[in-house]
Amino acid sequence: MPHIALPEGIPGIRGPMMFRPETARPLNELVDILLHGPHSLSPAERELIAAYVSARNDCTYCQTIHGAIAAHHLGGNEELVRSVKQDFGTAEISDKLKALLAIAGKVQLGGKNVTAEDVDRARRLGATDLEIHDTVLIAAMFCMCNRYVDGLATWAPEDPEFYRQRAAVVATYGYAAATLPQATAQSHA
Amino acid sequence: MPHIALPEGIPGIRGPMMFRPETARPLNELVDILLHGPHSLSPAERELIAAYVSARNDCTYCQTIHGAIAAHHLGGNEELVRSVKQDFGTAEISDKLKALLAIAGKVQLGGKNVTAEDVDRARRLGATDLEIHDTVLIAAMFCMCNRYVDGLATWAPEDPEFYRQRAAVVATYGYAAATLPQATAQSHA
Repeated sequence: MPHIALPEGIPGIRGPMMFRPETARPLNELVDILLHGPHSLSPAERELIAAYVSARNDCTYCQTIHGAIAAHHLGGNEELVRSVKQDFGTAEISDKLKALLAIAGKVQLGGKNVTAEDVDRARRLGATDLEIHDTVLIAAMFCMCNRYVDGLATWAPEDPEFYRQRAAVVATYGYAAATLPQATAQSHA
Repeated sequence: MPHIALPEGIPGIRGPMMFRPETARPLNELVDILLHGPHSLSPAERELIAAYVSARNDCTYCQTIHGAIAAHHLGGNEELVRSVKQDFGTAEISDKLKALLAIAGKVQLGGKNVTAEDVDRARRLGATDLEIHDTVLIAAMFCMCNRYVDGLATWAPEDPEFYRQRAAVVATYGYAAATLPQATAQSHA
């Protein structure tokens, strides 16, 4: 049961977002820019970073929904998402994305763990400063979202099909559409 | 030296915010609502939560600037800020704020550490659901900001006077004013 009186039957971050629409608006805008908007990293790559950090933070709702959105962008390849969460070093992804995931993992532990060597390696593999910046901010943002979701003891549905269906909506419409009151069904993941 | 090419001589979070104004806008809006806007918790109380979490995350820039803003709101009482960061249980603050800081400290470790007992205690001491929600989100937000600031190895000035002067500006104008390009000097802490 959630720690405070959240709207009933609303899963994950969407409960506290309905409870506090003032903060939901900038949160959704931030998530939308970083994960859904135009970018040199694909939506799948950015969602994989989000799912990976959320898995490291043991946040069931976030790792499942962002994993499902990544899989949606990957044509339904849920196995790839699983492999990234479990051991990205052996996953079938680019070396550049592996270097960015290594940075994201360091950020999850704490910002000071990121070294110049981590960043140099990503850069040598083709990462731009913007991509490095956004990887750090995506990882940091999910250290916020995961704590927000679990710190209020929100509800995470168990049915994988819920996440697949929701993923298709978010992948299509994005997160920011959620900030319109009439579009609650499209709110952040 | 910062890990990426940030604007030179810009301290703390303001460097990456100038580098990426698109994400700076919702970040500043979120910080402004939670720390500076109208609220049943005073600005000093909210800034103390921010400074406390930032101290636990060992983020020099954030704990110093938000500690300075808290002290500004407290008529310059830097000793109270120090006592909250070191051991809030013995600090001269209300029992309600102590209960909220206990929740914030749990969130810093990870959202699942917050228990129903922690929340019940805060409620018994007069905290509303909105105050509990915002405490969780402020703590979570600084787990993001601290990682953003340190994950990019930004510059933290050493002179305490820098933070005092900056604190007076932020306490007066707030964070959201920062999102106007011409108001860079007033950007987020």
